Amino acid sequence: MSTFYAYNPRSGTAGTEPFNESSPAEVDAAVQAAAAAAPIWATTGSTARAALLEALAAALEAARDELVALADRETALGLPRLNGELDRTAFQLRRFAGLCREGVPFEAVDDPAVPGAPPAGHPPMRRLSVPLGPVAMYAASNFPFAFSVLGGDTASALAAGCPVVIKAHPGHPALSRRTWALAQSVLDAQGLPAGLVGFVQGASAAVGLALVRHPAIAAAAFTGSTRGGIALWKEAQARPVPIPFFGELGAINPVLVWPGAQTDALADSLAGSITLGCGQFCTNPGVIVLLQGTGTNAFLDRLRSALVQQQPHPMLTAGMREAFVSGIQRQLAHGATALVQEADTAQAPRPFLAEVTAATFIAEPELREEVFGPSSLIVHAGSAAEAAEALRAIGGSLTVTLHGVTDDNEGHTALQAAMAVAGRVLFAGVPTGVAVTAAQQHGGPWPATTAPQTTSVGDAALARFLRPVCLQDAPDWVWKVLPT
Amino acid sequence: MSTFYAYNPRSGTAGTEPFNESSPAEVDAAVQAAAAAAPIWATTGSTARAALLEALAAALEAARDELVALADRETALGLPRLNGELDRTAFQLRRFAGLCREGVPFEAVDDPAVPGAPPAGHPPMRRLSVPLGPVAMYAASNFPFAFSVLGGDTASALAAGCPVVIKAHPGHPALSRRTWALAQSVLDAQGLPAGLVGFVQGASAAVGLALVRHPAIAAAAFTGSTRGGIALWKEAQARPVPIPFFGELGAINPVLVWPGAQTDALADSLAGSITLGCGQFCTNPGVIVLLQGTGTNAFLDRLRSALVQQQPHPMLTAGMREAFVSGIQRQLAHGATALVQEADTAQAPRPFLAEVTAATFIAEPELREEVFGPSSLIVHAGSAAEAAEALRAIGGSLTVTLHGVTDDNEGHTALQAAMAVAGRVLFAGVPTGVAVTAAQQHGGPWPATTAPQTTSVGDAALARFLRPVCLQDAPDWVWKVLPT
Repeated sequence: MSTFYAYNPRSGTAGTEPFNESSPAEVDAAVQAAAAAAPIWATTGSTARAALLEALAAALEAARDELVALADRETALGLPRLNGELDRTAFQLRRFAGLCREGVPFEAVDDPAVPGAPPAGHPPMRRLSVPLGPVAMYAASNFPFAFSVLGGDTASALAAGCPVVIKAHPGHPALSRRTWALAQSVLDAQGLPAGLVGFVQGASAAVGLALVRHPAIAAAAFTGSTRGGIALWKEAQARPVPIPFFGELGAINPVLVWPGAQTDALADSLAGSITLGCGQFCTNPGVIVLLQGTGTNAFLDRLRSALVQQQPHPMLTAGMREAFVSGIQRQLAHGATALVQEADTAQAPRPFLAEVTAATFIAEPELREEVFGPSSLIVHAGSAAEAAEALRAIGGSLTVTLHGVTDDNEGHTALQAAMAVAGRVLFAGVPTGVAVTAAQQHGGPWPATTAPQTTSVGDAALARFLRPVCLQDAPDWVWKVLPT
Repeated sequence: MSTFYAYNPRSGTAGTEPFNESSPAEVDAAVQAAAAAAPIWATTGSTARAALLEALAAALEAARDELVALADRETALGLPRLNGELDRTAFQLRRFAGLCREGVPFEAVDDPAVPGAPPAGHPPMRRLSVPLGPVAMYAASNFPFAFSVLGGDTASALAAGCPVVIKAHPGHPALSRRTWALAQSVLDAQGLPAGLVGFVQGASAAVGLALVRHPAIAAAAFTGSTRGGIALWKEAQARPVPIPFFGELGAINPVLVWPGAQTDALADSLAGSITLGCGQFCTNPGVIVLLQGTGTNAFLDRLRSALVQQQPHPMLTAGMREAFVSGIQRQLAHGATALVQEADTAQAPRPFLAEVTAATFIAEPELREEVFGPSSLIVHAGSAAEAAEALRAIGGSLTVTLHGVTDDNEGHTALQAAMAVAGRVLFAGVPTGVAVTAAQQHGGPWPATTAPQTTSVGDAALARFLRPVCLQDAPDWVWKVLPT
């Protein structure tokens, strides 16, 4: 049996407790249990679904001190951030509970009969939704609560009426196991099948592959690297029965800053956003497109000095640290010039900033790859049109931020390019920080996600796990047996 | 340059006029013109979009006699059906025009700022949609109006703000060319770019492949065979930037008939549905699951006699006729016993009916493959549970019809299985006939479609071509430049 170990980012050492990689038989058992729970949960109504989600939120909060301490030991993300993330995760569970109570998973389009011949006439019809079935949920490393065991994917899938089988992230195995045990207690207390929230773990690719290949898995949700996500997405398509794969992958989140907005305050704010959580955010601003103005040099000076004052904490894993170093080298090898580059400390990376012309940025695809960590790349654009061209070259990003862009300075050009490229377009602030709310769109064109028409955060995340069905000429008994 | 010829189904002969297969340069030119039109059309508001769709509907109607005669010569579907289909196509264009006037493509979720810290607090946000971009539209052979040049895919894509490049079906080349010429006249009269409705044609796979591979194509819509659809779907996934592929493929549309519903009237109705349009409907009832009752033998006798009275017209192409013969042989080779099998006439096939036990149907995947044409397969089920198992073995179908199923006879079992398998569940009538309306769901789990969460008919077809974008902290000028 394969084993793996937790990693302590602060000490740079592996833990001593072995974690067993789930065997093929264990993966199968978890999926079979989920498949057995699927018809039960699909026909469970709004009240019971909401009660489960609310109890899961309460269980997280009740175990807060223990969970946050575990998370901090395994991720080094720090207690303030982790407490906030636990709050957000509980909020998210309750928000989906609220959507259940409002009847969102059971919404229907009622289409009464229209007498007469086709095409205008038709029988009575109603369009509602059914849950897809067991969801493979791939946890992320960088949000050990909000995008992990009881994170947004689990909450939205359960709200939609789907069991989940969680592939825990090996970056926080003890936290994952403990969080899952809490979920099991809640299921038990509510008399719900244990298989409704399944759990597998492993540090190799084999466990995740076995999960996505399992015939009883009906959909997959993934948050993580572009490489890992695309590999699993390809598996999902290669199955005898392909399944929807909702992959939220990497993004470089360009921030356009027009001359009027090149202020000290924005430079300070960007320095904080670039280094927040050691840059380990999918919405980290990896590219800053500047249109040259009289204050551009001062803005860059301020950004440099603000960045060197930042003290990033250690990265989540040694592999991420190595990838960050490689990413910096890749930028420098493809025409970028360093603006901030300091000797790293033993555990934590130092912030990195480089610059390049828009022409080079557009010409070199390697400069448009994500560098996961506390760095950003300044892109100097000669015109609004060139800035828009740089955006379009990126192709897909979770966010684009537009600062100082107005209708008097070709703002329309930047707006159209931003909307063509991103799932979310910001006109103030920084892209880090993703509100769990009705209008959120945490997605974006390929390669930011594998399913650009969906979101993994916000109310619409629920719809990912539903499929429409039209009932035509349905008798009354049907409406009595369907859940509400 | 490759050429191809129309086919006259009544005479079984090819036409004399050569049609030129679009060259790679012509495919590129059509897509480039669509890409150039895309930003113009994306920012065009509801009134102009509706005006285009309504003018296209009027143009079809104004040219009715000419178009229907052309269609009949190339398809042999008959004037009554083709007139009705033209009516439906015009209705569909006007329905999407109506959705534009109601502002459906521009609908937004308004999410005002909530003061306070996260997770509850957030900035002002609004979630709206943007068009995907140029859509490759693959026309079907069996609906020369409704699923062809100006059919539902074109109507819904244009309503969503996307240009289309039509891959015409070689089964009705003169009709396709004439319909497209009408569309060009309408675009010209409205001062819209010709590239908004592009056109390519060919009888080989090369043209369709070049289209789906083109980097400027943003999505594809397809109605046709499972084999052809899956081949194009794979291409869509294999692109450097994969694109959404909305494929509506084959389906066998099982009809469950419980003893209480095994009436002469239903037998007659089914015989008509099986042979309607020579069985060339994606919703043709290819499987009839019977639960044994005292009237089952009489029902089968009546179905047999009703079927032999039908006079199917010739099939659309010689290839379809050959595939129909092969499909019958496949069923007979895998355990089915013929109930109705007559010598075919020179041009038109005769109806075919066979029977098999549910156990054999479940064991033999070949029996669950679509046989496109005027045939159906009786499946004898020993229990409601076995009938449900037979349904689940089908995996995916556009429709399931339930006759005589009530809450007193394990109806819940059949209902759950039907909803798990189909996009539309009927409780009366026959599956042929697909209303263009608000609650329609013309889709279903794989392999009925490549995108089971979408529909190709009905109001929701429009949403296939939109992608959500969240605008955060947007200033007022943004709302003034976005289309409404």
